[in-house]
This record gives sequence, structure tokens and C-alpha cells, in this order.
Amino acid sequence: MAHQYHPLGFEGSRIAQGYWRLAEWGMSDQELLSFIEQSIAAGITTVDHADIYGDYQCESLFGRALALKPSLRDKLQIITKCGIRLPSKNRPEIASHRYDQSVQHILQSVDNSLQNLKVDHIELLLLHRPSPLMDADHIAEAFEHLHTVGKVRHFGVSNFNPQQFDLLQSRLEMPLLVNQVELSPLELKHFEDGTLEHAQQHAVTPMAWSPFAGGDMFRLEGINPTLFKALTEVSEAHNASLDQIALAWLMRHPSGIAPVIGSGSIERVLSAQQAQSIELSDDQWFAIWVASKGHPVP
Amino acid sequence: MAHQYHPLGFEGSRIAQGYWRLAEWGMSDQELLSFIEQSIAAGITTVDHADIYGDYQCESLFGRALALKPSLRDKLQIITKCGIRLPSKNRPEIASHRYDQSVQHILQSVDNSLQNLKVDHIELLLLHRPSPLMDADHIAEAFEHLHTVGKVRHFGVSNFNPQQFDLLQSRLEMPLLVNQVELSPLELKHFEDGTLEHAQQHAVTPMAWSPFAGGDMFRLEGINPTLFKALTEVSEAHNASLDQIALAWLMRHPSGIAPVIGSGSIERVLSAQQAQSIELSDDQWFAIWVASKGHPVP
Amino acid sequence: MAHQYHPLGFEGSRIAQGYWRLAEWGMSDQELLSFIEQSIAAGITTVDHADIYGDYQCESLFGRALALKPSLRDKLQIITKCGIRLPSKNRPEIASHRYDQSVQHILQSVDNSLQNLKVDHIELLLLHRPSPLMDADHIAEAFEHLHTVGKVRHFGVSNFNPQQFDLLQSRLEMPLLVNQVELSPLELKHFEDGTLEHAQQHAVTPMAWSPFAGGDMFRLEGINPTLFKALTEVSEAHNASLDQIALAWLMRHPSGIAPVIGSGSIERVLSAQQAQSIELSDDQWFAIWVASKGHPVP
Repeated sequence: MAHQYHPLGFEGSRIAQGYWRLAEWGMSDQELLSFIEQSIAAGITTVDHADIYGDYQCESLFGRALALKPSLRDKLQIITKCGIRLPSKNRPEIASHRYDQSVQHILQSVDNSLQNLKVDHIELLLLHRPSPLMDADHIAEAFEHLHTVGKVRHFGVSNFNPQQFDLLQSRLEMPLLVNQVELSPLELKHFEDGTLEHAQQHAVTPMAWSPFAGGDMFRLEGINPTLFKALTEVSEAHNASLDQIALAWLMRHPSGIAPVIGSGSIERVLSAQQAQSIELSDDQWFAIWVASKGHPVP
Repeated sequence: MAHQYHPLGFEGSRIAQGYWRLAEWGMSDQELLSFIEQSIAAGITTVDHADIYGDYQCESLFGRALALKPSLRDKLQIITKCGIRLPSKNRPEIASHRYDQSVQHILQSVDNSLQNLKVDHIELLLLHRPSPLMDADHIAEAFEHLHTVGKVRHFGVSNFNPQQFDLLQSRLEMPLLVNQVELSPLELKHFEDGTLEHAQQHAVTPMAWSPFAGGDMFRLEGINPTLFKALTEVSEAHNASLDQIALAWLMRHPSGIAPVIGSGSIERVLSAQQAQSIELSDDQWFAIWVASKGHPVP
Repeated sequence: MAHQYHPLGFEGSRIAQGYWRLAEWGMSDQELLSFIEQSIAAGITTVDHADIYGDYQCESLFGRALALKPSLRDKLQIITKCGIRLPSKNRPEIASHRYDQSVQHILQSVDNSLQNLKVDHIELLLLHRPSPLMDADHIAEAFEHLHTVGKVRHFGVSNFNPQQFDLLQSRLEMPLLVNQVELSPLELKHFEDGTLEHAQQHAVTPMAWSPFAGGDMFRLEGINPTLFKALTEVSEAHNASLDQIALAWLMRHPSGIAPVIGSGSIERVLSAQQAQSIELSDDQWFAIWVASKGHPVP
């Protein structure tokens, strides 16, 4: 089930398990360990973190569970992110919500992540947001250092537009493998602003955050009845759930979208994983597109 | 009067005769043959088709007329398009209006076009619309095959933005020669969104569809009195009609715009062809620009 | 204090003195000479002109003052611009406000500028505005000629977007060094439309015109109280004026923004020059950004 994220490297699972709400799940370390094991057993081996998730606590919670069974480490591909500073009782030194993409911040953030996750390297580090104050040379210096010392294997970005991507890539020897952006049948913006064309051109994997539009997919009937009807018709044809169809719809795109799911329910995880076997016809794909746009294709 | 559409090839006429309304003209095969002959005699040798024009009938009507005098074939450069599926009584197998840019669809569409037009090759094939589901590798595979077997000489696109163009070009050995987009004194969008700069940079010919804004040029006084006044002043200075000035205005652009006209009246065709000899001054060009924008240049 | 505008050349002062309002200052030639000398003494050696400033009079006024002390010439780096035609009693041959970027116009405009400024070369010529009728080959021909004959040392543009920049650069052997655009804490547009990313990627210096938003910076309390408050807090922390903070904020950007100031008051000039020693913290930079945007960073 390994999925190639880029011609030059990084094999992960096509669907990644996101842990941004882990602190809300209320799991004991043992329960989380069990959840991780079941996810791996189902084939979801790529996990998506960020330093700031859960008020800077999610990485630690994950690390504590992982420490209960260190042999799991090699079965996982760990993604984490850096570059945002968030005021928090856990980080009293942070005065305001802003970006920090200095060499010092990136190196320190990765060291924190390694310590919290209790691992000696991470597979993929993403810059969390493009900063209006982005200095591509500084970021490249930090990335190259992290690569050289072996703390990070691969690099990517999140929420970057093509111009921002090109700027950072121009300073790096290594390819940026991933651009994690918001994509769902309810959020078509990046299908139309050049992001997916740019990703396809450069063989960069778009990862989809919020593939269920922050949960709107589950209350769609009231939000967008037209899209609800279209998704429902397709879901009935495949004997699948709406969220499975949303994932299958994303994965049908030729840019090779890799969705990040975020549920702590193992049933939902298994259901998502099964979505990989659903093959939408082009008629079905466009029925969803047209319903979301609200008008036929030109 | 041959016009070079790209440094690496394709000579056609600067103005192309479009046949998207051919089915509405009510011509007999003999009348259409006469129209084609007169157009060629006037110097308009490039004809613009699409598989879907006239509910999939225009290519056939043209092919029937052409079959009456096969020697005309070599005097024409035939453009046609593919990539859209349109529900039609003539295509009962098509369930919904969507794009199809699979290898199979492109190859089948070209075979249909060759059969309908009763020719063994076409000079220029355009992808009709960018699809949100565009797979550049599939399109490139189809284009390369069509080129190798000699069914299509040259390739281009229609309604593509620069990012979409770059994506497809990145997968092709051959240059895309043309991007056919809507351009007219009433439709300035692509003058300002990077399309024409991109075309000029890469020596791609922008073809202008709807150079008379779907006929609005002929009822301009009620639609846009300011633009009507500006065009009228220029037309009087050149002793020309408004539509001639619209064409001359497009052809004055340094990107080398090639307009596609669509009238079945040979008088209109001759009038359009004569527009090539009208040379607008820069003052005249900007007077039309400023009138259409509704404010002076910054 | 020399500032490198581009890796391949052009050293100027980081802050340029703009002369677009020179005709309104009411200075005698001797007073202007004194102003120029004091500016040079303060380290502001780069001067920013355009053919059209002051109804085509500013270059001449400057040239008359410079002629009083020719030895100053070599201490200055002169920027001027061309490409706009403005109706004026001083140019009765101009019928309408439009762009002219023909070879003939560019060469003539530079000859006029040299004659008005009473110098035999200028250091940096900018195309003043992108024209919808821009012919990159013509502009390149003019630029290459001016470079060869020694009338202009370096070239750049003003108000260009990345697509327009790439088009013109594609036709030039020499790099375009500068893109002069509107940038200020009140005008964030080019921080978000790719202009600064493109400049940073290609090591092009963005020069900032209207760094005080046409004077709005000095009546900010009524215009944008939130931004006024943020700038005031930062200015108090540095014991500096609001306009100094605006300049320091621009110069903190990693693209290397070079501001163009426009005051005829030597006190203002000295104050601006001192802004170079103010180093904003990232917290301060983002406090101003967030106040101007009106919402936190995402």
C-alpha cells in the first residue's frame, strides 16, 4: 500500500492520519497506542503532526504512546510542521501569534518535535504557512542543515501558492515533495488558482487538509443541498458513505492528492482507508464538481 | 497572405473562418462549397471547427461540401477541437455535459473528425477547454500518437491560463502553437490576466474567439455608448465599419492575435479580410482601450 | 552606505530621493543645489526622476541646479523613467494620455532626459508602466541600444507584475535590476500578489513608491486608527517617528525593498535616512502587518 509521494523519494500511505485534534480525544497512552497499531494494521502508516497542534501538546501525547512500543517507530512515516508561533500557557515566551521562519526557530522547533515525539528523525518536515516575511535563504539554510545532520529526511510546504513554492524551491538543492492545502468537494479554490496544475507539473504531491471541510461534509444536507444530492447519488451507486466518496473524489484527481483525515475513531479510519478501492467514473466526478460549483462546466 | 502562427511551424491565414454556426446557415452543400471557395479566393484559408459545433453536425456539413471538390483540401488549413462531451440526440451514449481528455476520447474524437470532414489529417488540433481533471501525461500521450501516425500536424489549446499551458507543455516535445481565447474590445480580461504576456513570451499565437463579443459589437450603441463613440470615431477616420476596427484593434496587438470570425455572409468575410490593411495609430488603439475600460490608463 | 541593488550591479543608496514634486517645492536653483548637497552628505545619493514628473519640468529644474556644481554628478546615481505620454502645454504634440514604448519614443525620451538633466548618461532607466500594447522585442531593442552607446548603464521596470516582468526579461541579455511598485504599511497588495516573491527569487530590488501612502501616513489616526495605534506603539519603543517606522518596516522585508521618499524638507530627508538604523523585531513587524490587515495571520 506504499504510495510514492515524489519521483525522488518518500514512500508513505496514500491517506495520512492527522493528529491535530488528538488532545481532544481523551485517550490514555495505552488507548492511543492501540489506535496507532490498528491504523498501521489498516495500512495508514503516515501520521501528520505540527508543533502547534493541541496547544503544543499533540506531539508529546503521541510520543508517550509510541514510547510504550518503540518497535512501531519504523512502521511509521512522521510528518510534522513548523514556522508558526502561537501564544500558549505552554509557551509563555511567545508574545504574539505570528510566523517565525528564522534558522534558529526552525532548528529549535524540530528539536522540540523530536524530543516530544521521542524519535531521532522525522520523515517529512513542512513549513506550515507562507510568511509575508519569508526569507527563502534562511529557510533553505535550515532545511539543508536538518537534512545533513539526519534529523529530517524530506521537506515540503503547506498552504503555499505557486509563486511562494517557486521562490523557496529556487534556493534548495532538494525537491520540495509536498504542498499540504485545503481541498474538498466543498473547497474548490485550489483546483482553480493554479496550485494543482503547479503540483502536477512538478510532480509535487498535494496533501488535502480538511477533506471533509471541517466536518461540513457530515451536515451537508443543510449546507449545500445540491452537493448533498450529488454526493448521495454517487455514494449509493458505490454503496459507500459520503465521506468515503469525498476521499475517492479527491484521490481521483491526476495530481495524486493524498488526504489527511483527522478522526480518532478507528471505524472512521478504516472507512477512509477503504475509500481507496472506490473508483469514481468521470461522470460521477463531474457530477460532484458541477454540484459544488452550482453551474455546468463551460 | 500566409501567416506564421509559431516560429516552429504552421502557416495559415491571419483571419480564420469559424464554422460553429454552420448548421444554422441553412446552406446546401453546393452553396457551402461556393462560400468556401470564395473565402479561399479572398485569402481566408484557415477554417476553425470543433467536434461539438452544431450539436456534432458542423464538421459533417463541411465535409460533404468539401467532397464536392476534393482539390480544395490542400488549399485549407483545418483546425478542430476535442475534449468536451455534450449530451445530444446525435450522441445518445453521452450522459452528461463534461470534459473527457482521456487518450481514448482524444483519439476517437479525432477519428470522428477525420471521418466527418472526409480528410486524412488535420493541421491543428486544439484541446477545447482546460479540465479540472486534466491529466497532462494522458493528453501528451494522445497528442504524440496522433502526430506520429500523421493524423494531426500541430497542436494547441483553447481557453487555457498560463499555468495550465505550462503544465501541458511540460509533458510535450512539440510546442503548443496556439491558445484560442475570447478577446475583443468588449472583453479585455485576457489582456490583463497574463494570458497575452505568456503568449508573447513563448511565441504562441492567441486566436481570438468572439472578436465581436457574440454580436454585441453590432448593438454597441445601447450596450456601451462610450465604447461605441470611440469605435465610431476611429471607424470614420479609416472609412471602415465598426467590426473591421474591432479586428484591426485586435491584430494591432504585439502578441499577434489571429481572429476567428463566424459569419456565413461572404460580404462579412470579405469585409473582415480587408481589416488586415487597416493600421490603427497608437492614439486610436488607446482611445478604444480607455473607452472600454471606462477610465484613463494609470 | 552603498547598497547593492542586484548581484550583477548597480550600487546606490538604500533610500532614494524622489523628485516628482520638485516643481511644487518653489526652490531657486541655488536652494535646490543646497538640498542636493545636503542629501548627498546624509548618504542619499540615488535620485529618482521620470520624464513626465512635474508636467515634464522636474528633470530640467534638477539639471539647472546640478549645472551649478558639475562635480556633484559623479556622487549621484540618477534613475529616470519613460514610456508614458501625458498631454501638457509643454508637449503640444501629445494628443492623449497613453503609453508609448516604441523604440523611437524610448530613445527620444532618454535623449530628452539627458538634455534636461544636463548629464551624458543615467545609471538606471525604468519603464514607467506596463502597457497593454507592450512589445517586448521593441523595448529590448531600445534598451540594448541605449546600453551599447553608453547613455544608460542599467535597466528596470515599474509597476510590473511577474508575468510582465518575465516577458520583458525573456528578450533581454541584461538583467532587469529593479521593479518600482507601491508598497507601504497601508498598501499591502504587492506583498500578496506574487510581486515580492518574484523579486526575491530573481534578486530584483523592489523599490517602494509612496512609502507613506501619498501622505496618508501623516493623517493615519483618522484613516486607520488600528494601524495608527500599532505604528505608534512601535515608534515609541524606538523613539522614532511614524514615517521612520514605516520605512524601517519596509526595509525589514527580505526582498530588500529600497524606499523612494519625496519630501523637499531636508529634515524629513535626514529623518528618513536615520530610519536605516532602526531594527524592528519580528513581533513589531507582524504587529504592523496584522493591524493593517485587520485580522490575525492565519
